[in-house]
Amino acid sequence: MSTFVVVGGDAAGMSAASKAKRDDPDLDVVVFEKGEWVSYGACGLPYYIKGEIQTLEELVSVTPEQFRQKRDIDLRTGHEVVDIDPDDRVVTARSEGGETRQSYDHLLIATGAAAVVPPIDGVDIEGVYTLGSMTDGKELREFVARSREESPVEQPDRGPACHFLESCEGAVGIVGGGYIGVEMAEALAANDFEVHLFQRGDRVLKTFSDATSESVAEHLREQDVALYLGSEVEGFEGDGTVEAVRTAEKRIEVGMALLGTGVRPRTALAEDAGIELGPTGAIETDAYRRTNRPDVYAAGDCAEAEHVVTGKPVYVPLALTANRHGRAIGQTIAGNPTEGGGVAGTAAVKAFEIEAARTGLLDHDIARDAGFDPVTETIEAKSRAGYYPEGGTVGVTLTADRRSNRVLGGSLVSGYGEGAVHRSHALVGAVTERITVGELSNYDLAYAPPFNTTWDPILTAAKVLGGKL
Amino acid sequence: MSTFVVVGGDAAGMSAASKAKRDDPDLDVVVFEKGEWVSYGACGLPYYIKGEIQTLEELVSVTPEQFRQKRDIDLRTGHEVVDIDPDDRVVTARSEGGETRQSYDHLLIATGAAAVVPPIDGVDIEGVYTLGSMTDGKELREFVARSREESPVEQPDRGPACHFLESCEGAVGIVGGGYIGVEMAEALAANDFEVHLFQRGDRVLKTFSDATSESVAEHLREQDVALYLGSEVEGFEGDGTVEAVRTAEKRIEVGMALLGTGVRPRTALAEDAGIELGPTGAIETDAYRRTNRPDVYAAGDCAEAEHVVTGKPVYVPLALTANRHGRAIGQTIAGNPTEGGGVAGTAAVKAFEIEAARTGLLDHDIARDAGFDPVTETIEAKSRAGYYPEGGTVGVTLTADRRSNRVLGGSLVSGYGEGAVHRSHALVGAVTERITVGELSNYDLAYAPPFNTTWDPILTAAKVLGGKL
Repeated sequence: MSTFVVVGGDAAGMSAASKAKRDDPDLDVVVFEKGEWVSYGACGLPYYIKGEIQTLEELVSVTPEQFRQKRDIDLRTGHEVVDIDPDDRVVTARSEGGETRQSYDHLLIATGAAAVVPPIDGVDIEGVYTLGSMTDGKELREFVARSREESPVEQPDRGPACHFLESCEGAVGIVGGGYIGVEMAEALAANDFEVHLFQRGDRVLKTFSDATSESVAEHLREQDVALYLGSEVEGFEGDGTVEAVRTAEKRIEVGMALLGTGVRPRTALAEDAGIELGPTGAIETDAYRRTNRPDVYAAGDCAEAEHVVTGKPVYVPLALTANRHGRAIGQTIAGNPTEGGGVAGTAAVKAFEIEAARTGLLDHDIARDAGFDPVTETIEAKSRAGYYPEGGTVGVTLTADRRSNRVLGGSLVSGYGEGAVHRSHALVGAVTERITVGELSNYDLAYAPPFNTTWDPILTAAKVLGGKL
Repeated sequence: MSTFVVVGGDAAGMSAASKAKRDDPDLDVVVFEKGEWVSYGACGLPYYIKGEIQTLEELVSVTPEQFRQKRDIDLRTGHEVVDIDPDDRVVTARSEGGETRQSYDHLLIATGAAAVVPPIDGVDIEGVYTLGSMTDGKELREFVARSREESPVEQPDRGPACHFLESCEGAVGIVGGGYIGVEMAEALAANDFEVHLFQRGDRVLKTFSDATSESVAEHLREQDVALYLGSEVEGFEGDGTVEAVRTAEKRIEVGMALLGTGVRPRTALAEDAGIELGPTGAIETDAYRRTNRPDVYAAGDCAEAEHVVTGKPVYVPLALTANRHGRAIGQTIAGNPTEGGGVAGTAAVKAFEIEAARTGLLDHDIARDAGFDPVTETIEAKSRAGYYPEGGTVGVTLTADRRSNRVLGGSLVSGYGEGAVHRSHALVGAVTERITVGELSNYDLAYAPPFNTTWDPILTAAKVLGGKL
């Protein structure tokens, strides 16, 4: 009987554990998780904080008890793995009960990522949060609840920056205009906070197209988010708790600040075990998610993956890849070697009443580094037939290679429910299958007036870009 | 200077005329249209009849005047082409002013399709409609307006079959459960008619998957549509105007009946000119939409197209193909030979509060005839993250070939706005690019809680079907 040990009980770890055990019931599967939560949907935290989801438990897809009872997995929460010995094939875990040594035949490192805390003045003051864990989510929700309880009535006479709490406690500062920043702007604004969003670069959602970023920025402003682009936060001020966010030009009084400045892979444990990192700083793996040490796999937010367009390693820590690669590893360990597939850098976000998605290569510098000659075109088209009621517009950006005419990437934005995100699924196929702009423009896509124009905006974008090639 | 003559001024004809003239301004472009309407969106007629669109003019994307003035196209409405002489390269058109002979260098036959009027007893009685033209749409809207005016108040005491008009004039019969039947059921129910829908076969939307058809049928019934499956209409009864629809088992009193029994290509003109039809009965063309006669093209609802999965000719008369092939012909004639691409048999429909789409091969008999060994699987999954508010389910059917694992077709159904139709775009790519179920299940599709589960329902369907292969 062989033993599969997993370090880390979130998406990649629990997917691998579950799939391996299901496909090979004789396997002993042991999972060490340092916290109490496993298999949780961290992506749902902004909606929990917003108040649309009532309990943290709702974010958990499978409980520890279910893993143990129904899936027969030896899940040990509260166990932090502190050492991996790949030569002897043993891991050491520490818990309240002391140290455990566990031997393995197959090992998966799924230690995830940690929120980046930039070395900014005052970053340790109370009231400066990150949003990387369930505990973070709980604290932020409690902050929101406390604030609303203390000042349940809006006080519009206090001016735009302090419209519901005394002494500006109703204003919040968000550092970073990525997914977390944008989603949390929505969550906090919905709770009547005055939101100040600081973005170091000159646009929000910087991995999306310029045009998509501009649409989202415009919408954030329409929703009364105070957006500061090209504005680097230099420090937080406060005596005991945070009272202000400071940039080179401004000092904005706030009652809370949130860092949405990205994540970095948790690799210390792997590095100590002699496991190699790749050029991105995450754990290097092959197509089967194997590391450089025998029978040691890595997946999820601690690992690299290969980009489907460039073939090069990238670090795109998102939920689907963790699930997908975890599942593939489970199949491999159960005796059916399976490649988990690459990533296209696909992402989606809702921002108040709009939605956006992106996939593939959009950045011209990155595309040129990969040997392409990129051309980009953006169109704005109706989301439903012009004569059909309601509807709005869809903005589609496509980037292609001038030499091969290959579609390299796409970015879309529309009103929420008007289909930017689900339409992006087709562009994932286009970049993955390496089709040309001309081939895309000939796709026989579904059409009916309640859903699109005869030429779906994707096809229109392909036609217009095709005209430039 | 060369002359491009187009017979028929709707989607294919006007797309070709516009594109040819734009790309080659020296070309003389002459379009003969027997009616008064050109370039209209017949797909919008159900929504005009429903009352969501106020005028027929709104369905026209470009007016005759705009074609003449802005696009410099010699558009002759009210001109019916009665003869094509491919040897002398001359067409003869008849109008109120008499006969015109027009020579051509390139000719496009875009005569469209006509609504099928089955040889049923009483089909000529007044009040039995088809919905194939703008005129049909106008008449049906007038019928709805007249009925509502005559009996504006609901009379629920008259029983379920006659709930707003006296003598059952508020009941309508629809023959055929295809797109038109389903869309018109919605349009008429929204106007308080009691809708009786008769379908000869055992399910509605017969080109969709069984599971999708069942979901749509269930929803129609929830919306109080009286649905008769496996119920062939044998005749209409009425003295002067229609009073009842008769099947073998039933006689339902109605004040109006609509035939939604499909369309057939208008090919007489082409046949008379010695132009060959294909096995489907529509005009045969090659990849450039050329017929067997030199410089004579055919496109739109009168012509065949090749199926992207089987490579065989099929007759799928829908708007996008007409536009796409028309545009490609325009480019070809302007000197840039362009293939318009095949069709995947993709279609979308809204039915009350749900939406459905299909693409590729789903029917096992058709798939076997094409040399495949088909396997089908249907899943039902959440349309958004389980913990995210609202949302519903998406039903996804996938059909694959057991030998090659290729995705052959797909069918989806969801609540309106929950993304079945836009998700189908990805499956069009899958069938067109001939990818396997395994490749599809590894797609890096966009995920965020307001849009889907971590594994989008498409991926879940691919995983489940993959498990059966």
